[in-house]
Amino acid sequence: MKITVLGTGAVGQAQAAKLAELGHDVVMGTRDVQKKMNDSEGRAPFAPWIKQHPKVKLATLAEAAKHGELIIEALHGQTVVEELKNLAEDLKGKVLIDISNPLDFSKGMPPSLFICNTDSLAEQIQAALPDVKIVKAFNTTNATVQTEPQKLAGGDHHLFICGNDAEAKKQTTEIAQSYGWKNIIDLGDLKSARGMEMILPIWVQLMGTLKTPAFNFKIAQ
Amino acid sequence: MKITVLGTGAVGQAQAAKLAELGHDVVMGTRDVQKKMNDSEGRAPFAPWIKQHPKVKLATLAEAAKHGELIIEALHGQTVVEELKNLAEDLKGKVLIDISNPLDFSKGMPPSLFICNTDSLAEQIQAALPDVKIVKAFNTTNATVQTEPQKLAGGDHHLFICGNDAEAKKQTTEIAQSYGWKNIIDLGDLKSARGMEMILPIWVQLMGTLKTPAFNFKIAQ
Repeated sequence: MKITVLGTGAVGQAQAAKLAELGHDVVMGTRDVQKKMNDSEGRAPFAPWIKQHPKVKLATLAEAAKHGELIIEALHGQTVVEELKNLAEDLKGKVLIDISNPLDFSKGMPPSLFICNTDSLAEQIQAALPDVKIVKAFNTTNATVQTEPQKLAGGDHHLFICGNDAEAKKQTTEIAQSYGWKNIIDLGDLKSARGMEMILPIWVQLMGTLKTPAFNFKIAQ
Repeated sequence: MKITVLGTGAVGQAQAAKLAELGHDVVMGTRDVQKKMNDSEGRAPFAPWIKQHPKVKLATLAEAAKHGELIIEALHGQTVVEELKNLAEDLKGKVLIDISNPLDFSKGMPPSLFICNTDSLAEQIQAALPDVKIVKAFNTTNATVQTEPQKLAGGDHHLFICGNDAEAKKQTTEIAQSYGWKNIIDLGDLKSARGMEMILPIWVQLMGTLKTPAFNFKIAQ
């Protein structure tokens, strides 16, 4: 399947690597291709990563948006709405899985959310792109856990998804299952993204307390 | 130990019943004793409950606040800060375990929080009562799960606590352990109450999806 991954950070890399491994035709989108190809700094440097993943192609955001039948969006929360608005024509009618989070670390720890409670980033994206089928998913888990769920506690933990389009959620569920997810909870329409994004402050606190991002929520019953 | 439970709803009842069963001297506090003793309506009617728990005494909020060496507070989020302010003198120097949540169902589902993100109900209580040692705990679980954790998934799930006073958190941990809690995560100072309260919207969504409040978060590692 032709899949686009918007965003080239740790989450974008994990998603693109897994999708390519599963045989999909993957194009990643970034603002400045030349700059990104030479990027060897930061928490998830791109230059060494792309060398190790020759099947993945890198393109501008606009070219990448044209490519995919399915879009996985892992852009920065702060700018995602504006960036996606520019791609509206090429995203029209497609399913877009939104992994972004409205995290604001600018005021120190614990981080706050710059949208929350009576709205969510996912709902703002949906409002800005009414012709795109937005599904919120993967945002409550670390990049590695997202694509290798079986490597954590034998896969005995949960993925949450929500969205307004049943077919789009079915497609998202199938992608997640192809990664190895066995426990997927559909929380309903896109308003549930509020709760999925508001779980982030305790997630960040837990990462600090446990001294690792390699954990996830399991719903014990 | 002399323990006060402020609030007579489902959470107050579960806490008081368990503490009395464990041999503590329990007084519950309510606004209007006479009215509460005749209350046989609602989700957790008090009149039939107190008949079944003759060891538990009911008193006014002020009398109850005087009684306890330890205070468990399960009042309505909307009014808790004002009610506790009136009890400040009698609560001075004591440990108060805050179970309340800033939930607002007035605008329909999903509920919103009337305080969140850059502040929390627990921090507002601490600010209003600087001489009381506030610990946030139990607010992320259903009343029954709070006091009978072993009955859910064999106790294989987590309780979160936070607060500014180490000794108060130790005492809260011991009470939780006496209920059967084995997995307790101390998230640090009281600012972590933001994340603990912001988990409520997804909790409410999960209750709707799973059609039961008998679940809890486990941190899978």
